[in-house]
Amino acid sequence: MRMYDLIMRKRNGEELDEQEIRFMIQEYVAGAIPDYQMSAMLMAIYFRGMSDLETAVLTDAVAHSGDMVDLSGIEGIKVDKHSTGGVGDKTTLVIAPIVAACGVKVAKMSGRGLGHTGGTVDKLEAIPGMQTSLDTKTFFDIVNKTGLSVVGQSGNLAPADKKLYALRDVTATVDSIPLIAASIMSKKLAAGNDCILLDVKTGSGAFMKSLEDSILLAQKMVAIGEHAGKRTVALITDMDIPLGFAIGNAMEVAEAVDTLNGTGPADLTEVCISLAANMLFLANKGSMEECQTLAEDSIRSGRALSKLIEMVEAQGGDSKVIRNPQEFVQAKYSKEIRAEQTGFITHINTEKCGIASVALGAGRETKESQIDYAAGILLKKKYGEYVNQGDLLAIMFAEETSKFDAAQNMILDAYQIGANSPEEKPLIFARVGKDGVEKFD
Amino acid sequence: MRMYDLIMRKRNGEELDEQEIRFMIQEYVAGAIPDYQMSAMLMAIYFRGMSDLETAVLTDAVAHSGDMVDLSGIEGIKVDKHSTGGVGDKTTLVIAPIVAACGVKVAKMSGRGLGHTGGTVDKLEAIPGMQTSLDTKTFFDIVNKTGLSVVGQSGNLAPADKKLYALRDVTATVDSIPLIAASIMSKKLAAGNDCILLDVKTGSGAFMKSLEDSILLAQKMVAIGEHAGKRTVALITDMDIPLGFAIGNAMEVAEAVDTLNGTGPADLTEVCISLAANMLFLANKGSMEECQTLAEDSIRSGRALSKLIEMVEAQGGDSKVIRNPQEFVQAKYSKEIRAEQTGFITHINTEKCGIASVALGAGRETKESQIDYAAGILLKKKYGEYVNQGDLLAIMFAEETSKFDAAQNMILDAYQIGANSPEEKPLIFARVGKDGVEKFD
Repeated sequence: MRMYDLIMRKRNGEELDEQEIRFMIQEYVAGAIPDYQMSAMLMAIYFRGMSDLETAVLTDAVAHSGDMVDLSGIEGIKVDKHSTGGVGDKTTLVIAPIVAACGVKVAKMSGRGLGHTGGTVDKLEAIPGMQTSLDTKTFFDIVNKTGLSVVGQSGNLAPADKKLYALRDVTATVDSIPLIAASIMSKKLAAGNDCILLDVKTGSGAFMKSLEDSILLAQKMVAIGEHAGKRTVALITDMDIPLGFAIGNAMEVAEAVDTLNGTGPADLTEVCISLAANMLFLANKGSMEECQTLAEDSIRSGRALSKLIEMVEAQGGDSKVIRNPQEFVQAKYSKEIRAEQTGFITHINTEKCGIASVALGAGRETKESQIDYAAGILLKKKYGEYVNQGDLLAIMFAEETSKFDAAQNMILDAYQIGANSPEEKPLIFARVGKDGVEKFD
Repeated sequence: MRMYDLIMRKRNGEELDEQEIRFMIQEYVAGAIPDYQMSAMLMAIYFRGMSDLETAVLTDAVAHSGDMVDLSGIEGIKVDKHSTGGVGDKTTLVIAPIVAACGVKVAKMSGRGLGHTGGTVDKLEAIPGMQTSLDTKTFFDIVNKTGLSVVGQSGNLAPADKKLYALRDVTATVDSIPLIAASIMSKKLAAGNDCILLDVKTGSGAFMKSLEDSILLAQKMVAIGEHAGKRTVALITDMDIPLGFAIGNAMEVAEAVDTLNGTGPADLTEVCISLAANMLFLANKGSMEECQTLAEDSIRSGRALSKLIEMVEAQGGDSKVIRNPQEFVQAKYSKEIRAEQTGFITHINTEKCGIASVALGAGRETKESQIDYAAGILLKKKYGEYVNQGDLLAIMFAEETSKFDAAQNMILDAYQIGANSPEEKPLIFARVGKDGVEKFD
């Protein structure tokens, strides 16, 4: 078998078979296929796409390039959740406790912030003392004892994905739906859960800017998960504007705590309840309606918040900041941003808000950057609200005042203010399962 | 400027500008752009194509990556000729003497055999003593004195093309019409002639298998030549079956001599007269009809053959073999191939004949292979002829009888024999100039 022939066949629109795809991944990881052949293949895939079967085989081959986590030491059905990434997306901090409070174990590996989007592991590390790097035994013990644990990725999960992603990143082949689907799902398959709930973000702050592409990506990922024998469902949720009000690690944990207290932002609460209900549904906890009620009850009863506290304490974190988020370290400086026009807020560009938060210190500008957990943005007005010129739009937090000017310009640029009240938009656009797409409006 | 952005723009179907294309070639040759980015770009070009302007700029940038030959030391209009490569294509050996005999100087650099196709330089070297590697002064002196010289490529012509071609060859990006056009024309621009006649082969033995693609390639190359200020014309000629009867270096020189004697195969004679007439036309020697007559007269009068003898002698070759081709070294063994069926010859697969001739020793199976100048195939029956089972189809020549079996199978496989007389086909399908395509039938 020669890589040249595989490139030629894919270029010509033919379907690669299982043996060919496995050969390609094995030999690429082994260094026997050079980058210049793989990048030509990736560009051919960009143009020709991959069938569901090709994508499923690719994902499986990439997953098996490294460790396959064995979660059989944890009892019951384990449900994973993955978000394609957003700004102000603190859903995992809310959902994992809800699901655990309803009796479904959550053994979750999460990521760090990437570019303008945040990462759950960075948010957790805003909690003093919190350990996100645990050995397998400790991780399993915490899940078995408390019902949940959220840690960073450990071990050697899907190394082929790391190598492929690094190549895609420099050859303009990142935004291919089958390649994105295979990249995400390879790590999910390796993570060893029984079921997978996908939160596919759509809109200005998401990787997928259009609903159509988001649904296509969701369908590809569901097909991969089901092909691998894992029940998989995807929700398409809004990331056209930031989720909730807080952007920045400690502020986002505080907002998650508010949500678990029943006093969080309406949009964040609605999305978290839906995601949690779908995870419970995948774990056979009842009908969708019953699962929705279970999730709501877990908040109302305080059981979900208790689960978060249990987890934080089990992972060495100081739960004082969870019990009273005022205890979080505060930024040295803050600055208000006020509306320059009067009118309705017709859009908040999420990517710009994300970039502004990174500029304030809430994310990494280079791999080596240290995160400032107190830095970030607190939005005071959201989509559809009416503002008068001079009204408070948002507050910025940072360790140095020199960071405010650039961030303020980006945030003002992100807010669009117009004469007419914009139309209402759903928070959850669609639910994609193996039986098809259910659209909401 | 970043290569990443250029790949992205090409991938998205945008047009690259002159500065971007020159940057890309310069930095690639300098090693600052890695192969893996260039191969992604090449695959994107495969899918998106290139505009005439992009292709012209690419060609110019590649041409200028190395030496630009200055032919101003040779008087008059210099016309180059390029064939896209075929089997049994000995046209240069016939045309260059015709054109020189008509008073137009030919200072031509030719190539060696590649894969199943032969090369003029290899054919010339079948002449004992013939030098094909001359210093510039000697080359110019011979052209000025005799009117013609045909040598191998010397100097550092279009090194960017060598590097790009090597990458395309292993990434399945060779057969992109703009890339083929740029590759061929970069060397033609660097070779310094005033006008260029292109012989674009079409059919089973050609790089371009379809007439449509051959015309597209011709149009691209004519556009490049004209953009560079060189009058350029292309003829689309048949390579669906081998040209002439002889395949193999010494035999092909002998057949070229027959043609210059007026006793060559009809197909070869017609194609050579047309190509030569077009070269004379480009050199302003009169109307197409007048140039056709000039070419025919040069054969009839013996002046063309005399020019070949002059050139061979000037380049150190023994003209005895030109005066009497029986003097060429003869193969130690020969073997006849006879028809296995009765009927009309409906096709002779040219690529298979070419591969068979290489197997017999007439071409190189590896870069290091030595060519056996006496080896090859003499076809005895051509397209449209009627044969009875047992009739002589072809004769093979080789230095070892062990080579005959495999070659015989390929040649028998190449010949298709059917019940019905096949339709007549033109030898020259079209003429492509800057003003459009003229089709013949």
